[in-house]
Amino acid sequence: MIKEIKGGICAVDGVKAFGIKEGKKGLAIITAKGNAAGVHTKNKVIAAPNIVTKEKLETNGGFLEAVIVNSGNANAFTGEDGLKDANGMADALAGKLGIDTKFVAVASTGVIGRKLHIDIIKEQMCTVLPNLSSSEKANEETMKAIMTTDLVPKGFAVEAETALGTFRVGGITKGSGMIEPNMGTMLAFIYTDAEVKSEILKSALNDAVRKTFNMIVVDGDTSTNDMCLLTATGKSDVVINSYEKPDVCAEFQNALETVMKELAKMIAKDGEGATKLIECTVTGAYTEDDAIAAAKAIVRSPLVKTAIYGNDPNWGRIVAAAGYSGAEFDQTGISLIVADGCNQVSLVDKGKITKNDEATLSNLKTIMSAETIYIEMNLGTGGKETATAWGCDLTYDYVKINADYTT
Amino acid sequence: MIKEIKGGICAVDGVKAFGIKEGKKGLAIITAKGNAAGVHTKNKVIAAPNIVTKEKLETNGGFLEAVIVNSGNANAFTGEDGLKDANGMADALAGKLGIDTKFVAVASTGVIGRKLHIDIIKEQMCTVLPNLSSSEKANEETMKAIMTTDLVPKGFAVEAETALGTFRVGGITKGSGMIEPNMGTMLAFIYTDAEVKSEILKSALNDAVRKTFNMIVVDGDTSTNDMCLLTATGKSDVVINSYEKPDVCAEFQNALETVMKELAKMIAKDGEGATKLIECTVTGAYTEDDAIAAAKAIVRSPLVKTAIYGNDPNWGRIVAAAGYSGAEFDQTGISLIVADGCNQVSLVDKGKITKNDEATLSNLKTIMSAETIYIEMNLGTGGKETATAWGCDLTYDYVKINADYTT
Repeated sequence: MIKEIKGGICAVDGVKAFGIKEGKKGLAIITAKGNAAGVHTKNKVIAAPNIVTKEKLETNGGFLEAVIVNSGNANAFTGEDGLKDANGMADALAGKLGIDTKFVAVASTGVIGRKLHIDIIKEQMCTVLPNLSSSEKANEETMKAIMTTDLVPKGFAVEAETALGTFRVGGITKGSGMIEPNMGTMLAFIYTDAEVKSEILKSALNDAVRKTFNMIVVDGDTSTNDMCLLTATGKSDVVINSYEKPDVCAEFQNALETVMKELAKMIAKDGEGATKLIECTVTGAYTEDDAIAAAKAIVRSPLVKTAIYGNDPNWGRIVAAAGYSGAEFDQTGISLIVADGCNQVSLVDKGKITKNDEATLSNLKTIMSAETIYIEMNLGTGGKETATAWGCDLTYDYVKINADYTT
Repeated sequence: MIKEIKGGICAVDGVKAFGIKEGKKGLAIITAKGNAAGVHTKNKVIAAPNIVTKEKLETNGGFLEAVIVNSGNANAFTGEDGLKDANGMADALAGKLGIDTKFVAVASTGVIGRKLHIDIIKEQMCTVLPNLSSSEKANEETMKAIMTTDLVPKGFAVEAETALGTFRVGGITKGSGMIEPNMGTMLAFIYTDAEVKSEILKSALNDAVRKTFNMIVVDGDTSTNDMCLLTATGKSDVVINSYEKPDVCAEFQNALETVMKELAKMIAKDGEGATKLIECTVTGAYTEDDAIAAAKAIVRSPLVKTAIYGNDPNWGRIVAAAGYSGAEFDQTGISLIVADGCNQVSLVDKGKITKNDEATLSNLKTIMSAETIYIEMNLGTGGKETATAWGCDLTYDYVKINADYTT
């Protein structure tokens, strides 16, 4: 059984954090000792901090003691200097904390192709370090420090009761534009006080990323800096050292996915300029890949996104997006329902348009004006696979924010 | 040698056309007897007129006498009724013209998922038929009749001089949103008075579509109704019956691609809400597919498109888009130049940032304020393949148009 708790990552035993934001430049530091796993962007332009952190986790036995994160400069496409700066950030923190730099991860988010001002980061570090704590306020400040165009700080935590005792999972994340993660969202830091063996941690994270962060689309741009780190402090009584206790493994996976799904939805809802969250569930697919492709095509489609922004009952665009997604698809068998959580309207039932009269379209307009819009599409192939993707509407403000980001 | 001429499709001997537009509903009729080839949408939701036209060309020996096109209703996702209506349109025209319906193609564009009002189409047909002519005005009215959210009618024609005599190629097209054609754009009708054997016509059209219409992106949505038809009336002295005269074949291919490239650029420039045309040329790719993937990713990226709208010199987004495109890519070898046709600025040279100072960024801002922005990116792999894609900026007006299309 899992329940939501307050405090984000600081609710997890063994985690201390703090951060500051000065203008566009922020710095966050998180300390937590334990087995760790990470996933990184699949963009072929890989930011320096991602290269550095990935390499550390591959060579240090999958263990972390601290993470240092700056916002405002992505340290991406910055060549040798960028690598030096990313290592410099980690080394500086390791020096201050008196730990081995190989256990310090580094992450960055912001503008691409600009040299990092490491002096500013070192100054900010001196302000942040004395404030490291496990308070709720510390979690708040950490979430704020890593934001860029985000409007809302994003964190979530749960407590799970198992046969072995209780454990917690907490995470924070940031991300608002350049969002179609292909491995982790822009930045996400997840912690648990369960003790989890390295291989199990890695595979749990990969599975969860596939179903959560990799299922959100804001604009279809994959960032150069996507990174998601999971650290297990082992401070609780729950020890997951093998798959021999499948119940506890499943409970851990469930708690992890719950936290990451909430964080993923927060990112989609806070997509640049967004006014609405779109949750699209595709069923009746032959393969999970087909279900994923169709669900993501629908939440990625600029035409679907603008229609949802304007409450325009132009549902044919949803069908068209599934049609070009590459998923196996039988247009004589598909079904389409749009809902707002309370009411729903059936638009297509097994290939036939349910009703396209004024009353139906007016009903659809009302449903589309809700804060969360649920789209349910059956691909009509008779297959059993499903997937859910999250996105947001496309608005004037997305254009405004991105026409004027660096200047 | 080829030169631009006036008159669009009506400049081609053997072509007569006319059209009307009443509110959102338009009808165009084109008559031209000859070998014909077509390419259609790869969306798995295929509109009824596309199914009907495709089947006719597959079974009638690749020959057309007339095309009937309505705008305002896509006749897509309309089931058995839709097929009946599409055939009904063709049958009605065939009856009026006294020709076999198997030689009449049908095309539609507009809202998806609405039953066609075939009565309105039949009424409009009676107005259009008596006006069929080969005048410049007839071409104008035909271009206007097939428009939906297009702001500008789109046509282009050339005359080519060859050893066998002169021939002409003319085309008209429409398309503004739901544009990432995967075989032909929304609708394009191309005519030539050369006499061209069926197989040569087909292969010429496929090659040209790949390099022109398939290289434009407005919003990344592939329509259900994309169709491009090419008819050769054979009224000129130029006969292309085999590949034995490679010079004439090449001249024909060149004339065809010239017309289709101009039409493709017109669509990109008239993309919904667009204020600028983006032409992106990718070089240094291992394979043509890599070059295509990178060029299209750049012109598809909402972040690149909004930056260009706002003259925001955030060039890192161009590098990031190439990075996630899937193309082979060496970030230590890439080069990036942005130009406006007169001036250019080098941003990255063989993996090194050229200069990121105020003067460079200010220069880039000036270049970005031009009407056409040229992006040249070398992928740095040492490969020799290239591709060019066209797109437009993403603006408030794209959102406005699409938040309020059917309502």
